Amino acid sequence: MTRPLRVAAVQVGRIDRDTPRVEVLARLTALLEEAASKGVQLAVFPEVTFTTFFPRYVFTPSEATELNAFYEVEHPETGIVGSTNVKAFFERANELGVDVVVGYAEKSPEGTPYNTASYVSKGKVLSKYRKVHLPGTSEPVSDPNATNQLEKLYFRPGNLGFQAFRAPHLKHETRSPIVGMMICNDRRWAEGWRCYGMQGTEIMCIGFNTTAYAPLLWGSADMTQDQSRVEAIFHHKLVVQSNSYSNSTFCITSARCGWDDGKFELITGSMIVDPNGHIVAENKTDGDEVVVADIDLDACVQGKTKMFCFEKHRRPEHYGLISERAGVVEPEEVA
Amino acid sequence: MTRPLRVAAVQVGRIDRDTPRVEVLARLTALLEEAASKGVQLAVFPEVTFTTFFPRYVFTPSEATELNAFYEVEHPETGIVGSTNVKAFFERANELGVDVVVGYAEKSPEGTPYNTASYVSKGKVLSKYRKVHLPGTSEPVSDPNATNQLEKLYFRPGNLGFQAFRAPHLKHETRSPIVGMMICNDRRWAEGWRCYGMQGTEIMCIGFNTTAYAPLLWGSADMTQDQSRVEAIFHHKLVVQSNSYSNSTFCITSARCGWDDGKFELITGSMIVDPNGHIVAENKTDGDEVVVADIDLDACVQGKTKMFCFEKHRRPEHYGLISERAGVVEPEEVA
Repeated sequence: MTRPLRVAAVQVGRIDRDTPRVEVLARLTALLEEAASKGVQLAVFPEVTFTTFFPRYVFTPSEATELNAFYEVEHPETGIVGSTNVKAFFERANELGVDVVVGYAEKSPEGTPYNTASYVSKGKVLSKYRKVHLPGTSEPVSDPNATNQLEKLYFRPGNLGFQAFRAPHLKHETRSPIVGMMICNDRRWAEGWRCYGMQGTEIMCIGFNTTAYAPLLWGSADMTQDQSRVEAIFHHKLVVQSNSYSNSTFCITSARCGWDDGKFELITGSMIVDPNGHIVAENKTDGDEVVVADIDLDACVQGKTKMFCFEKHRRPEHYGLISERAGVVEPEEVA
Repeated sequence: MTRPLRVAAVQVGRIDRDTPRVEVLARLTALLEEAASKGVQLAVFPEVTFTTFFPRYVFTPSEATELNAFYEVEHPETGIVGSTNVKAFFERANELGVDVVVGYAEKSPEGTPYNTASYVSKGKVLSKYRKVHLPGTSEPVSDPNATNQLEKLYFRPGNLGFQAFRAPHLKHETRSPIVGMMICNDRRWAEGWRCYGMQGTEIMCIGFNTTAYAPLLWGSADMTQDQSRVEAIFHHKLVVQSNSYSNSTFCITSARCGWDDGKFELITGSMIVDPNGHIVAENKTDGDEVVVADIDLDACVQGKTKMFCFEKHRRPEHYGLISERAGVVEPEEVA
């Protein structure tokens, strides 16, 4: 190994609507300490890690206080988010010398809600990402058996784009790893991956909350819970492995999983994927778990300089459709 | 099934450098007739189907005649390519009422060489595609154990972009399927898939010739033939399944496979993939074979209107990097 790094996908199990934040933070801190004790240098936590995945609930006007409490606000100087407990978590990461990626619901200083992840190193936010591809709807679904996914109601699309950055705390000699972050549904969209690939990204960090039972999204109404879970994990792995391969990057992807409130199942699928698209480590449980792998960042070089040497092979003159409009225009029907 | 279609990936086995074209054409015609006898309405043949995959050879100046004979030129009226034998093949497809996609080396009327596929229906070329992503090199490689891949020498990058089109011969009531074509290495590039996705494509047709042994592209120098073949097929399936899923399209993908000249192995992997990324039919042999599946084009609707409803979820304001330059620009190193 010429540029070794020990990394972890930190999987976080069941968190209920009424689980106290202090309890969640205690679990996250224990996972962080476990990672540190194993020599992990970079630990990636899931999406919306500090609370349950609240976009599944409809909040009535009288529940506004509960809804608001799910969001964090950042400290004006460090950029570190929120409440006292959350602050203590980042301080502990700093003490332990572990770089962390953590997802959380954010209210910006202007009050705009985002689904956010921060890369925190040595007690400072090195980079922040706000989820671009919000799935779901802005109105509750009418089917009483379907789980709501109200991200379009509770968040706005990220306004920071896909900004790769260097992680100097993980530097080898003169070269710091190039890191990118996305969140959950973003992983299904090749555009975000490619924007990071175009910046030479070597480690993608992606936390997620993915509903196990969503037959109307990827199956038929008569799909069982088991069938739906298998399909959801199949799609998750497929897009992460394929896009890691075609952008010659490692990916650390971490699940918030388990049966929240005892009735809303989220898939597992925490894993570390290499630049050839192979899974090098993955979760063994459906609860709190630290998935560790030793990776060599120089394993990205072969792909980036041969099969996927963008400079030699890409033809941007034919890619205009991708950035010039959002939606589909079908060719005209013919006689 | 509300919009049923019977389709075939037509796999074509070993063809040597000196295999007479009349012999290849007889095999292709037999495969076409087998497909027709099984009720196939659309048959997709591989890349550079009429000859061996000649970009693996270095041709000396004295071999210019042999090199030139690998290319087809199109008929000025029908758009149908080339030699008498090739013409007979398309006439037979017309008699049998089968729409075909066939790949071949093309010299344009201006003499420019392209790696081309044509969609031929009822004796006419309905659409033509010229491979955009040419892999390999324009100079022979120095390693005597490596197989040359001189596509950048023998072809120019396609100048037609990614143009989806309607196939009226396969129409159901008022709606003709929307079809797209790519060739071989194109399937590894999400950009082409997405350009077709942006046009509502329901069937991607992709022929390929993929070297089984290329350790310097995706492995290490000590990789065995078996290991390399397994890796090549893994990558092939990964990108086809993932991009079919994330563009909610069927894909028919056909291999030129086998041990050309008894020493250059090409992978198999002919298959039909559905819009959820699942393989619904695939090759059982490593030779000439018709892989048939009954598909329902309306299976594309769920993905196109929910998870991958582009109008609702895409954010083109953040995709500029993809179309504004070819290559990588890394973030600056930090102290």
